[in-house]
Amino acid sequence: MSTATIRVPDRLLLGSGPSPVPQRILDALALPTIGHLDPAFSALMDDVAAGLRKAFRTENRVALPVSGTGSAGMESMVANLVRPGDRVICGVHGLFGERMADELRRHGAAVVRVEAEWGRAIPTEALLEAASAPFAAMFVVHAETSTGVAQPLDGLADACRTHDALLLVDCVTSLTGHPLDLDASGVDAAFSGTQKCLNAPPGLAPMTLGERALPRVRDGEVPSWYFDLSLVLGYWLKEADAPRAYHHTAPINLVYALAEALAIVHEEGLEARWARHARAHDALKDALAVLGLERLAPEGEQLSSLLAVRLPDGVEDAQVRVPLLTEDGIEISGGLGPLAGRIWRIGVMGEGARVEPQERLVRALAARLGGDETGAVDALHAGWSA
Amino acid sequence: MSTATIRVPDRLLLGSGPSPVPQRILDALALPTIGHLDPAFSALMDDVAAGLRKAFRTENRVALPVSGTGSAGMESMVANLVRPGDRVICGVHGLFGERMADELRRHGAAVVRVEAEWGRAIPTEALLEAASAPFAAMFVVHAETSTGVAQPLDGLADACRTHDALLLVDCVTSLTGHPLDLDASGVDAAFSGTQKCLNAPPGLAPMTLGERALPRVRDGEVPSWYFDLSLVLGYWLKEADAPRAYHHTAPINLVYALAEALAIVHEEGLEARWARHARAHDALKDALAVLGLERLAPEGEQLSSLLAVRLPDGVEDAQVRVPLLTEDGIEISGGLGPLAGRIWRIGVMGEGARVEPQERLVRALAARLGGDETGAVDALHAGWSA
Repeated sequence: MSTATIRVPDRLLLGSGPSPVPQRILDALALPTIGHLDPAFSALMDDVAAGLRKAFRTENRVALPVSGTGSAGMESMVANLVRPGDRVICGVHGLFGERMADELRRHGAAVVRVEAEWGRAIPTEALLEAASAPFAAMFVVHAETSTGVAQPLDGLADACRTHDALLLVDCVTSLTGHPLDLDASGVDAAFSGTQKCLNAPPGLAPMTLGERALPRVRDGEVPSWYFDLSLVLGYWLKEADAPRAYHHTAPINLVYALAEALAIVHEEGLEARWARHARAHDALKDALAVLGLERLAPEGEQLSSLLAVRLPDGVEDAQVRVPLLTEDGIEISGGLGPLAGRIWRIGVMGEGARVEPQERLVRALAARLGGDETGAVDALHAGWSA
Repeated sequence: MSTATIRVPDRLLLGSGPSPVPQRILDALALPTIGHLDPAFSALMDDVAAGLRKAFRTENRVALPVSGTGSAGMESMVANLVRPGDRVICGVHGLFGERMADELRRHGAAVVRVEAEWGRAIPTEALLEAASAPFAAMFVVHAETSTGVAQPLDGLADACRTHDALLLVDCVTSLTGHPLDLDASGVDAAFSGTQKCLNAPPGLAPMTLGERALPRVRDGEVPSWYFDLSLVLGYWLKEADAPRAYHHTAPINLVYALAEALAIVHEEGLEARWARHARAHDALKDALAVLGLERLAPEGEQLSSLLAVRLPDGVEDAQVRVPLLTEDGIEISGGLGPLAGRIWRIGVMGEGARVEPQERLVRALAARLGGDETGAVDALHAGWSA
């Protein structure tokens, strides 16, 4: 029985994140706080680094949770690896590409935007064409959370290596929910978030840097004390028997939650988890199609972990989404930017990528839209049985 | 019974932070995660802002937890309020003044250092002398966590106003544990941390900005997307019926913990809490003096919430501090910088400022130092009864 005096409502989180946090992770979160220099915490940090490497599919020495939400990972990556005047190719096909272009501009980069319509992947050829002139880094959003589109990474690393440039990737919404193999794709640095397919609370940004990226870390000259990796790594990157050097106080309990989340991921196995997310995505897509909700992303460009669907004509976003939250207790997300009021974004993340929560959503949406509830639920189950 | 598979040891946290987190706050932390745009979370944000205003003793509209540990508050303050070329007076009398000087340099400020020996307060006259020429901001560390010294704020605001400069304050370790009245002291912006006298887990930096500071926020030109207050305030600063605009996903569960922590603070009352911390500090100081551990800060310059004591001759820091942690389960902190190996820093923070945990520490230290346990414990109790 909770002794807390604050109260929060019951919600089924099927929006763009945060995702449903299992009790096991909430229990880990609530373990007693210990010190950030305690040897017991140091051992846990090693476990988290190992679990992150495995989740990212990388042998990189540097794998750590940045002490902030997903965007703090973006900021840390840019502040440390991009110098004023650097020519940086930035794929923009949704809000998070736009956000990165803004971040790059703030850090003085000469940003070369390579765009695609929101809801489509960027053609690889367009990125390679921009890479024909010298550049310092290429950034792409692997998992565009604003549209539910997955960006292929094939062929980008070779183009980057030709110009001794870094390949930088946002995988906030794909990590452990959509196939991703950083080393096979030649990614030099990537960041993610804990509140998507990892099912941990928000507040940490898992990040990894490879050996090509490390020499670029702007030792002492990063325009940020908090995110300066030359300092942060003295704490996080355990070298032989050197003690960990205090930088800032790590968010101890969030690290507990991340450790537990990674344990759950690796108990299931990464490939089994990817396959489950793909199946959950397809099943829900089929069910929602029965209700007249068609997926935004074309087949082959979809992101398993986020299903964005177009609103049917005559359906007003808030008139469904608000009571779905406040009366049915189910959160889904609206569209952003040019897609505001035109799409819903439904998370298919970790424990949200299960038939039970999906059936609850399908039934509630069918009732609110006046659609074929039985047909939709049958399609959902058929998808899961396929 | 916890379902988590990770394990952490039992520790009594009497170091420089994190401080002991009561079960009530751990229970709040573990409440189910809800969405950052959920109306229920929005209501909780209002409560947190109100609780922070009361804790800071300010009427400022802007009071929010920055999404990062204490130093993220420092970074947010500097990135938003300091422009390249600004002449900024920076008090340096410990590690956290040094850190701020580094942060200011990274943001292009012309830093005017006003120094004092580590372990002493900076004479107000020295700060006022530096303020005789025009300047843009003055920064002081109200609570120097590296030395246990409290910096008087009297007279600084008038000097700042003469030059239309801002008074900026680090109160990471003083908030709710040492007398602090931001509005009475004319402070324009301040930041703190949750893992000190608030007894919440680390990961948030309470911050407040007054009306003189707000126009300085570098709208869109902050060299940081994550900390850009012109964007963050669209989410945190509730204006009439305007909806909260998504910026980044707030660390939901840490905000729960902060809300519960603030509730506990205001149940006790701020002045009663300050008085309890002062009494706990004095009692522990007297007890440790019996063991030959003399306070670093002179009388009148001490910070209630952190007691730094000099190691007696012949006592080797790690030979006591390490087994105190790993065998006795009690964490205290060593010295930093020039005081490494020469002092211990003992937290007197929130639930750590009680006679029971202090007695446990005094007995353990007496045993390890071979000191007069009974005399020390008697002095502790006498201090509490005074």
